[in-house]
Amino acid sequence: MKVEIITIGDELLIGQITNTNAAYLSKHLTAIGLEVKWATTVGDDADDLKKALSAALKRSDVVITTGGLGPTHDDITKNVAADYFESDMVFKPEIVERLKHEFAKRGIKMAAVNEGQATVPEKASIIENPVGTAPGLLFEKEGKKCIILPGVPSEMQAICEATVFPMLKKQERTTGQKTIRTTGIAESTLFERLDLNRIEQFAKVAFMPRLSGVDIRLTAKGKHAEELEEKLSNGMRLIREKVGKYIYGYDDEELEEAVAKLLFEKQKTVAVAESCTGGLLAHKLTNISGSSDYFERGVVAYSNEAKMDVLGVPRETLEKHGAVSPETAVTMAEGVRQHGGVDFGISTTGIAGPTGGTKEKPVGLLYVGVANEYRSFSKKFVFFKDRLINKERSVQAALNLLRQELIQA
Amino acid sequence: MKVEIITIGDELLIGQITNTNAAYLSKHLTAIGLEVKWATTVGDDADDLKKALSAALKRSDVVITTGGLGPTHDDITKNVAADYFESDMVFKPEIVERLKHEFAKRGIKMAAVNEGQATVPEKASIIENPVGTAPGLLFEKEGKKCIILPGVPSEMQAICEATVFPMLKKQERTTGQKTIRTTGIAESTLFERLDLNRIEQFAKVAFMPRLSGVDIRLTAKGKHAEELEEKLSNGMRLIREKVGKYIYGYDDEELEEAVAKLLFEKQKTVAVAESCTGGLLAHKLTNISGSSDYFERGVVAYSNEAKMDVLGVPRETLEKHGAVSPETAVTMAEGVRQHGGVDFGISTTGIAGPTGGTKEKPVGLLYVGVANEYRSFSKKFVFFKDRLINKERSVQAALNLLRQELIQA
Repeated sequence: MKVEIITIGDELLIGQITNTNAAYLSKHLTAIGLEVKWATTVGDDADDLKKALSAALKRSDVVITTGGLGPTHDDITKNVAADYFESDMVFKPEIVERLKHEFAKRGIKMAAVNEGQATVPEKASIIENPVGTAPGLLFEKEGKKCIILPGVPSEMQAICEATVFPMLKKQERTTGQKTIRTTGIAESTLFERLDLNRIEQFAKVAFMPRLSGVDIRLTAKGKHAEELEEKLSNGMRLIREKVGKYIYGYDDEELEEAVAKLLFEKQKTVAVAESCTGGLLAHKLTNISGSSDYFERGVVAYSNEAKMDVLGVPRETLEKHGAVSPETAVTMAEGVRQHGGVDFGISTTGIAGPTGGTKEKPVGLLYVGVANEYRSFSKKFVFFKDRLINKERSVQAALNLLRQELIQA
Repeated sequence: MKVEIITIGDELLIGQITNTNAAYLSKHLTAIGLEVKWATTVGDDADDLKKALSAALKRSDVVITTGGLGPTHDDITKNVAADYFESDMVFKPEIVERLKHEFAKRGIKMAAVNEGQATVPEKASIIENPVGTAPGLLFEKEGKKCIILPGVPSEMQAICEATVFPMLKKQERTTGQKTIRTTGIAESTLFERLDLNRIEQFAKVAFMPRLSGVDIRLTAKGKHAEELEEKLSNGMRLIREKVGKYIYGYDDEELEEAVAKLLFEKQKTVAVAESCTGGLLAHKLTNISGSSDYFERGVVAYSNEAKMDVLGVPRETLEKHGAVSPETAVTMAEGVRQHGGVDFGISTTGIAGPTGGTKEKPVGLLYVGVANEYRSFSKKFVFFKDRLINKERSVQAALNLLRQELIQA
């Protein structure tokens, strides 16, 4: 089944935002076995949108649009689609009631302009929006589907997960994919260690370097789900044999989720002491629902006073070795572990940049400290010049050290 | 002059990579005053690409393609374009000479497969690639231009900066844009408060809701730069008059940058005490280079013990009012302000979800605490069910309260 995506909005054509909606839809539609053939972007222009809809519905079985469904004057998608499918507009009071109820729950009076959301094309089915005010719409004509979604990524994604993907998923799959996520190993090293000829007897291999590490994507073709499963699991087995210890998860699993799973499973607790990562390590560890079971506290000790007061780093350590040093990393980890009364203390100290480096301690330098019941140690990393990327990579390195410790715990 | 973008590659249609080339081109073409009307993505498929080229060259004056220009079997763009423009292919030895020279400079022997780069369509002009092996191509026909570029972002960008943008820039600008960024006010309320008829006498208005708030984009048309400037500044003035206090920045400026600017300017310092935002507030505040000048410490006090030990929240407050309460928010802010010896203490406590809510304290509930030299107070917010979105929105609310305090400071 061929699918096509139309993303709508001037903000995409002036480059104000990157088209993450197209990437999200492409990825998830491919993952449920559909073939995405075209993706088109048009501005908030009725004529262009109508032309794009017409071309797409000729070529493809399913067309998904995002954007232009809000309550204001520049949101034209609903009317253009109604026009294209020759549908009258009708007012559905039950939509207003639901919206009023949602606003009331949050203690906010609903602005009158939102009532417009309840005027919808008669020929469309309503797709409920679990997290916002603009409902999605589904038109069906001559065996083809046109699915109209809002452009706010969180709303679009929530509707897709609740309704659109389950609805489109109901046919036999002939393509299957699996992503194997690694961290702590370079793309070129992976390439050298893996026996690509053997793996590609089962599935095509693609390497995708990311800030979080390198993902390996397997794509298998076959006649039915069992064949796909078997080919993918053969491919995965060959990869695990060679580079298993660098694999932290599969598909969309993030490193922090893998760490959280281990913490839950082994009933261990953690506290973190951050300098250069500035709270990002705590943020990642608390992104998981239920994290209060394992996360006790985090300290972002930017000043030396905070390092001494809250973490108990001795003044002499800071004076002798400096704030960015293996010694400081270790005492930070030990301090937060002891104060938090937890199993693991993890610390970061480094130079995030882009300024503040010296010849001995360049921008991108990082020490991660680890303390547990039996030992404390630090590990050194050197990254690049970009502050935000350095924070991301530093947190990834710290989480991976914690993951390795947990596997042994 | 209307421009259209065609991005080529299976990797875009399976969602393996986000289409940053389209965003880059859109942004820079708009910035030099061109109007980008459509953007299309097709896979590595000759038939689709030919159809896309044909449709684009009918609609627009300039078509830019990226991707499919490499030396391997799945790179089809050059041949499809030659076919479309009915051009023979010719071998240009000077291209091979240049490539050999480039490889020699880097001390590498050129792989034979690169010789294919020297076979080019006879009707195309060569656009030199200053950083890679695949040259760009320019076809001109009936007053229209078709510019064929490689897909590797660094190569595409280098060719654009050296040749494509200067070539296309040779006319007076007729479109100008400005984005006004607001937070703490709903899209529907903005729509009701602004006098759109008056503003649109100067510039077209578009509302773009984001997690960070609502952006208002003004687009003006005019004969020259001064006219555009004047129209945009008239539009901005009308918006500032009605909703000025919700505006935190313009164009790409983030809320944390606006806050950092105020902190630098007024030489104030801040420390944060987070519960439900789990480190994200500290992370945002430390994303700015030089943040150690204003950011003293952050505490992520997930456990009640951490709230008592590190922030000095009295046990009675926690027992009587609970961890998620205005009272706890205020004592957290006061505690971190006092321990950090800073001008502002900011705290967050709430229920990020998706579980853990009760009837009285639902998921999405947030209290932000603020403490300064003169007063302490808290403010209540209610968001939705999604944990990560709640963390983002909560941090945005906290940063905005800090911004408002700083404006008065």
